Formats: sequence, structure tokens, C-alpha cells
Amino acid sequence: MMEITANNPNLSSWINVPENSDFPIQNLPFGIFSNYSSSNKRVGVAIGDQILDLYQLFELGYLHELPFEGGDFEAEYLNKMMLHGKMATRQLRNRLAELLSTDNQELQANKDHVEQVLFNQKDCEMHLPVKVGDYTDFYSSEQHAYNVGCMFRDPDNALLPNWKHIPVGYHGRASSIVISGTPFHRPKGQTIPNPDQPPVFGPCKLLDFELEMAFVTYEGKALGDSISTAEADDYIFGMCLFNDWSARDIQKWEYVPLGPFLAKNFASHVSPWIVTLDALEPFRTSGPVQDPKVLPYLEYKGNKHIDINLEVGITPEKSEETVVAKSNYKHMYWNMNQQLAHHSVNGCNIKCGDMMASGTISGNEESAYGSMLEISWKGTKPVQMKDGSERKFIQDGDTVTMRGYAQKEGIRVGFGEVNATILPAK
Amino acid sequence: MMEITANNPNLSSWINVPENSDFPIQNLPFGIFSNYSSSNKRVGVAIGDQILDLYQLFELGYLHELPFEGGDFEAEYLNKMMLHGKMATRQLRNRLAELLSTDNQELQANKDHVEQVLFNQKDCEMHLPVKVGDYTDFYSSEQHAYNVGCMFRDPDNALLPNWKHIPVGYHGRASSIVISGTPFHRPKGQTIPNPDQPPVFGPCKLLDFELEMAFVTYEGKALGDSISTAEADDYIFGMCLFNDWSARDIQKWEYVPLGPFLAKNFASHVSPWIVTLDALEPFRTSGPVQDPKVLPYLEYKGNKHIDINLEVGITPEKSEETVVAKSNYKHMYWNMNQQLAHHSVNGCNIKCGDMMASGTISGNEESAYGSMLEISWKGTKPVQMKDGSERKFIQDGDTVTMRGYAQKEGIRVGFGEVNATILPAK
Repeated sequence: MMEITANNPNLSSWINVPENSDFPIQNLPFGIFSNYSSSNKRVGVAIGDQILDLYQLFELGYLHELPFEGGDFEAEYLNKMMLHGKMATRQLRNRLAELLSTDNQELQANKDHVEQVLFNQKDCEMHLPVKVGDYTDFYSSEQHAYNVGCMFRDPDNALLPNWKHIPVGYHGRASSIVISGTPFHRPKGQTIPNPDQPPVFGPCKLLDFELEMAFVTYEGKALGDSISTAEADDYIFGMCLFNDWSARDIQKWEYVPLGPFLAKNFASHVSPWIVTLDALEPFRTSGPVQDPKVLPYLEYKGNKHIDINLEVGITPEKSEETVVAKSNYKHMYWNMNQQLAHHSVNGCNIKCGDMMASGTISGNEESAYGSMLEISWKGTKPVQMKDGSERKFIQDGDTVTMRGYAQKEGIRVGFGEVNATILPAK
Repeated sequence: MMEITANNPNLSSWINVPENSDFPIQNLPFGIFSNYSSSNKRVGVAIGDQILDLYQLFELGYLHELPFEGGDFEAEYLNKMMLHGKMATRQLRNRLAELLSTDNQELQANKDHVEQVLFNQKDCEMHLPVKVGDYTDFYSSEQHAYNVGCMFRDPDNALLPNWKHIPVGYHGRASSIVISGTPFHRPKGQTIPNPDQPPVFGPCKLLDFELEMAFVTYEGKALGDSISTAEADDYIFGMCLFNDWSARDIQKWEYVPLGPFLAKNFASHVSPWIVTLDALEPFRTSGPVQDPKVLPYLEYKGNKHIDINLEVGITPEKSEETVVAKSNYKHMYWNMNQQLAHHSVNGCNIKCGDMMASGTISGNEESAYGSMLEISWKGTKPVQMKDGSERKFIQDGDTVTMRGYAQKEGIRVGFGEVNATILPAK
């Protein structure tokens, strides 16, 4: 297996990386950007406050030893680059770390080239990084499933009988996954305010966020074949932050018996940078003991959870942000390896660019709950904003921002943020 | 609105159309094919036992008055052609009817050209016609929902409270939609044979088909906008047969609370020809009276149901077919216009190439039930095959075939068939 040399904690870059930046040389996440120099979308890599233009870098000959073509980097999405597979993208990230390293003069010494390949992030527009073929949402945080079960069923039987045997998941809508910063309108739909009366139609009254992370896959196996928990890492390119907007009142009325539909598919926001699974390796941690014992195809070896700090803030219109949740991705009962093994155990074919979200990530403390449904406990415990207003759910004009980073021994590998502002119903 | 001249019942073609062919000049369905003359995939149109090669026809100059390019017809999928929208594809179908009409000499008189553009269907390979962005499955046959409710809940409350208010639907897996004739392996998964014991892993024991039809969409509106029932026809390109394979034992254990997942996403088969909604216009019929009254956004005007005869046959390995169901697409409670209006009422963005299936189409008679679950009533009423064997569900080596056609006043507009053979679990 090729070494992940880009993870070397002793590396430093000749590009200035501000303190507490999410994007040191040990991260090098991939995204799609455009800017004043070209409205064509290209693959970029974040370093400090800047973006390295991989298309220009390729054109200038810095990547010619690698198995890529120019069209992989001047592209609408990361998919073409990802189609080369894990060894190729690892080799690419290692090469970028080499070029950006203080000790390396190749690019550093050529000021003309540096000017052509580096741009300030604030001067660039970020785009949806991946063309999502199929989107799956899991439900893999025990505390979240327990909280929902308590509220809608019974605290003594909060988890349904299948929950500890199956990484429960369902298919979601790919077309409405949009990039951070895309404003959207409050959805309209059917709800049933009074169960003895007919349903009514109108704007959703219980709009909620869900704090999630998603992983993006390489091309999987053919229809009929499965990916084991041991193989799963080779099929995961990287991760991003994911806000799975939910219309709780629409969901409650529609979801029986086939699951959530219009309550979820009006918009989901992702952060622009895909942090590679390689960059997250140093932050691996153990997961919970799984009791009852899982079936053999869900067993796994080693540390497959990841310690990633997460937070959510609400910024009311023309006001300042209040952080309403601090959670961690390590609070998952089921890890990505188990999710991917389960998803494909029936022969379902995983494709390059599929996106799989974690489900709401709630920790055990109330301050770590990952949705307003849980934070306000169905609206019974309003949350105080810094501007004096209260929130049970999300209001028009609010901006919801999620952030995430892993940190260990002085190295911080972050995700940036995903944010979105809610416009009134059309 | 441009007239649909291809529907003229008085048209006949200079190409021989065998009696009872699904593909007279009044049909002209679109598909993707390749053959000995070129392994490149092209758009073809079925006429009798032959396929008209639209790419060759374009190259020879017969379509130059129309708003298409060669790349729309030499294409992996119909999507590029469909991106031109309804008026363009209607104009194209009208032009093809003109060229194929007995009275027209343009193509007919040029034997060289005829040889270049016409191929026997039996010499061609058909491919998945559409690149499916998102796939949605509805649940819109009342008899099917009632039957399932009776078996799994209670005959007195078989329909859930939301069923007559909402065209219930859920998101499915797009990547595992495959073309008729693609063999597939019996899926494996978790089931719980005894609810007091832990779940077990192994091949599905209750493999079932679901007799469905699907419609394919043109590019819809932007995220946040909705398509009304009155506008829906303009966003529907056409229809095909759809076999929504279901693993009943996996489904029963996994589906609460977020809906079916691995029980459905191992394979779904579609028929190769997309019959345009235009070609189906003469077969429109009225739907059921909807009581209770639906919400205004689900109201519709005119006849929006379609009279399409459907049948399902099972062919055991090395044996002959037994027809096990005869149903009709008109047995839908919710029509496509209502489904599309509901799907987008929250602002969900519909894309070119989305596929939306009807849900199992069961009529009121037992002989019209559209799944083995209903036909064998959970396995309590085995079905006799012609070879003497019995079926409760589908066995390894069985081929399941679905067929459909509309017929009126001597004109038959058919779908051909969708079939698939089940291989043993891997």
C-alpha cells in the first residue's frame, strides 16, 4: 500500500497558513471552483486561505508523472478525477504536498507559475463538488434515534427492534443537494395540525436542520457484488459536512409506511471541500461496543470511527450567531465501513460520486443534540438567541451554519463550513 | 399547441408492420440500440419488427429542419434528445411519421438510404434508454395498498390515514435500474424468521416482482418552483414497463421507520422502448372519483388516466410461460399529473431523465393482482404453473416477463416487454 506522505506532521508549506486554519498542508481537500481568471469550473485544493488550481498546475507540467488528463481537472465535478481510483488520488495528494512543502523549490521558485496557480479563496466561487448519482441517508447515531423514539413513541422502547442489527438507511433525492450558501425557500406541503380534521396545505411550520456528515464514493463493484467492511476504505474518497434540512410537520404526516419524501427533498446543503479519508486517518478512534453482536458481514477490525468536532450556529437576520449544538462524528454507532458493507451486501452497485450521509449526529449531552427537534425537545424548550429572540425551529431569514474539524497534536484538519439562509415560502 | 399528426389513425407505413405488432406508425417509441453496423449507441425508433436509426437518418439530412444535433442521436442515452423539450420531440415524432408514411417518397424511394437506416430488431442490442438521475417509486394503486394493508395490518383499517390525501411515494435507487434481459442474482440480506430470535443473514426467500409502469421526465423547473397538475403533461416524455423487484422478507425487517432500502435496490428492470405520452393520448380515460376531495394542488381537469392492458408471466427454467396476472394501468387512484404535482409542490427540482414508477398496479379482481405477495396471498395460495410446479414467490431460474399495450379502434400502441431471469444467490 502506498504511504500517505501528505499526512507527515512535520511538513510545513511555503504558502502562509494562518493559525487555526482548517487547511494546512496535511489536509489538502478537493473542491470545484471558478473565478475571474476563468469562468470554467476547475478542480482546486485548499491551502490556508488560498486555492491551488489543479488544471493550471497540470497544464504547466507539474502533474505529468501522474495518471491524469487535463479534462480530469477542468471539469464540472470531481467525478472524472475520482474515477481514477484511490491509489491515483492518493498519489496526487502526496505530489501536491511535495510541491507545497517548504523544502521543495519546483513551484515555489517560479513566481510566474505561482501567480498562475494560486488564488485567494475570497476571490473564488465554490460549486457543488460532486455530481451525485445516488444519495443515501443513514440513521446511525444512537442518541438521535433514541431521542426521536422517545418523542414519537415510548422511552422504554425508543429504539426499534432492527436498529442495533442494521445500519438503517433510506434513499434520498440527489437533485436537490446544493452547495453551501445557496439560499432556498421554506417548503410548502401537506400537514395535519389536527388529526381529527382533514390535512391542510401551506408553508412548513417546523423547519429543522440535521447536523450530518457525508462520504463520497469511488466507483464500486458491478451489480451483484458486495464491498466488505475490510474493503470499504478503498471505496471512500472523502467527507464533507451535510445539512439534511427536514420539514418535521410534513414528515410526520407523510412518512408512513414508506419513509420521508417531501419532508427532505426540497434542499440539502454540503460544504464545498471534500476532505480525503486519507487526511482523516490520523484522527481515527474506536467506536462503541456493539451489543448485541452484529452479523458477520458487519463486523470490522481496527479503529473505523473518526474524531471530528462539529458545531451548529443559528444567525437570525441582521443579528449575530448563537451556537446551538456542539457534537462529534465519533458519536456514531455504525461507522462508514459498516454502512457501505450493508448498502452493498445485497449486490446494490455503488457508483463514483454516490453520497452517503450519516444521519443526525447527536451526542449524549443535550448540548450535543444535532437537530432543533431534539434541542428544543419538540418545541417544548425554546433556545435563547443572542439577540433576545427564541427558536423552537428555524425561522425565515435565519442562517444555519455548520462547522467541523479534527485536531490532534497540533495538526488541525478542517472542513470549513456549510451555511444556508432560509427565504420565506414562495 | 402543435398538433400530434403522428397519431392520425389513417396513417400507414411503407414498412411492413405485422398484425398485432406493438409498434405501428402511430406509436414510434424511442430507445437506445447498437448493432453489427456500429457498436456506438444510437437513438432508435421501433417500427414493426425494425428499428429506424435516428443518427443515420440525421446524418443523411432527413432531420435537418429540426432543432437537433448529431450528438443528440449518437448518444449513450435519450437524455440529450429529451433536453430539447416536448415541442421538439413532438416535432421529431411527427417528422418520423411523415417519412415512414406510405404516401411519402422521400426516404422510401431511396433504397440505399433505407438500407442504412433500417435494421431488424432481432439483430440489435437494446440498452438502458435513459440515464436516470433520480428514481421515485409511488404507491398509487388503491387495491395494492389495500391488499398490503390487509395482510400486514388490519382489513378494517387497511389504508393508512394519509393514503387518500397524498400520492405516497419514496426515493429509490437509480444505479440498479437495468435494461430488460439483464440477469441478476437473488439478493442476500438480513431477515428475522423468528421475531424472538436474532436476525439471520442469507439469500432472500421471498423474492417478488411488482408490476409497475414508469414515466420519464423532461427537464423540470428550478429548485423552489413547482409543476402544477395542468402543466405536468409538458414535463412527461413517455412511459415504459417497470419491474420493481422486491425481497419481501428483507423488506419486512428493515423498512421501519424509514422505508424500503435493500429490499428494493438490488435490481429494477425496465422495458427498452419509451412510448411517448403523445402516442398514448388516444387512450386517455377517466380515473376514479376521489373521495375525500383532494387538496387544490392535487385537483386536475380532463381524463388523465390511461387505458393500458398489462400482464405478467412466469417461465420456470426450461419450461413454458404461465400468465399469473392481467391488470391495467387505468386502475390507478393517483395519476401521473397528480404524482408530479405532489413531487414538486415543495420545490423539489425535477431533472431530465428522472424516472417515476407507479407502484404495483393491482386491479380489483384477484386475477389482476400485480405481485406474488398478493397473488399467493402471502404464500397461502400457491399458483399452479403449466409444468406442474407451484409458485408462492419467485424461484431461481424463473424468468418473469411483463407486457403492456393500449388498443382502441384498431390501433394498438404497445410497450413490448420487460423480462429478467433470476440466478441463484452468489
